[in-house]
Amino acid sequence: MAEQQEQLILLDFWASMFGMRVRIALAEKGIPYEYREEDLRNKSQLLLDMNPVHKKIPVLIHNGKPICESSIIVQYIDEVWSHKAPLFPSDPLHKARARFWADFIDKKLYQTGRNLYTAKGEEHEASRNEFLECLKLLEGELGDKPYFGGETFGYVDVSLIPFYSWFQAYETFGNFNFEHEYPKLFAWVKRCIQNKESVSKTLPESPKVFAFVQHLRKRFGIED
Amino acid sequence: MAEQQEQLILLDFWASMFGMRVRIALAEKGIPYEYREEDLRNKSQLLLDMNPVHKKIPVLIHNGKPICESSIIVQYIDEVWSHKAPLFPSDPLHKARARFWADFIDKKLYQTGRNLYTAKGEEHEASRNEFLECLKLLEGELGDKPYFGGETFGYVDVSLIPFYSWFQAYETFGNFNFEHEYPKLFAWVKRCIQNKESVSKTLPESPKVFAFVQHLRKRFGIED
Repeated sequence: MAEQQEQLILLDFWASMFGMRVRIALAEKGIPYEYREEDLRNKSQLLLDMNPVHKKIPVLIHNGKPICESSIIVQYIDEVWSHKAPLFPSDPLHKARARFWADFIDKKLYQTGRNLYTAKGEEHEASRNEFLECLKLLEGELGDKPYFGGETFGYVDVSLIPFYSWFQAYETFGNFNFEHEYPKLFAWVKRCIQNKESVSKTLPESPKVFAFVQHLRKRFGIED
Repeated sequence: MAEQQEQLILLDFWASMFGMRVRIALAEKGIPYEYREEDLRNKSQLLLDMNPVHKKIPVLIHNGKPICESSIIVQYIDEVWSHKAPLFPSDPLHKARARFWADFIDKKLYQTGRNLYTAKGEEHEASRNEFLECLKLLEGELGDKPYFGGETFGYVDVSLIPFYSWFQAYETFGNFNFEHEYPKLFAWVKRCIQNKESVSKTLPESPKVFAFVQHLRKRFGIED
């Protein structure tokens, strides 16, 4: 029961796909923690103290020590609580491959997805094409496997599945149909939600995220 | 002698700080490999086949399987050849901290450093300020330790030291004096070069890199 005596605090924001990764990883491991919602327009002193470099959520505070950046936090969780639900394969080559696709999601999918609802004109069109190409590559990487991690839900699955809660916004502002155009990825989403309570209990409802995106567009002056 | 029978090919470009990371990590481990210089304006079919997503060097090809992205390659090397010169501490918290700073170097130092010789006007000024702030943060993280890895040369050291070969360009186009303004970082550079043959034999001469940067500026139309 040593784990339960440890102090684990997550500084997060409900709609953050990066925060959701951490929540899913902790749920996969069955680790209890204290969730603290941040107001991103008025960040807490604790957040600024714990992540002075980036000043961003999520931050996991483990017995007073901060771990920042979602992909680093998920790897940390997997290393500290390695006894249950390992997120990485043991083979270094497969591990490198998982890191590659998670990095791809961070570098390409996130930014181009964001541009779907923040950019206009040519930049929007270019981002849309790149976003759809990203999905095509991810669908190719998934192939006929049940999960990106193969038979088990792993690091790439944890990294990608939170984006699904933003897909109503991506589809609307990117003008595409996820289910029809990416059937394997769509089946993978359904599989994750159906088989993984860590996912179904973490992902917010799409309409709630969609309303948040509309609010962002108003704030950025993209919509009246 | 099993290692020597393995086939290890590195697709690289001499002036790439990302490629240098891989060369330093392989040298630290004492692993022989075949180096293949790429012409980045006319990439080889092998590079395009091995890294179809990003089409970038460095790529390490281990027994026919590609590993891409320098930070992922260095972690792969450390995991496969774990018997010698470990680059990561075993403690997950220290490991997360090393990953954090390597990620910081990739996300912040690289792009702002690049803008020193490619950007103009306000963008140049903003990048200069951010670049100098990055160095200040890195100097703070190093503190009075001999290496970022503490007593031993580690992952952050491998990630950062290649940038030194670009510092003549950074100093010239960023108008600052590295030695005077960042004495601890400068002492760390000298320590790495003096104590680590993996570094001294890998880093190209600064004037050669400087000439290459001037060539890039001409190509980008920043200089006549």
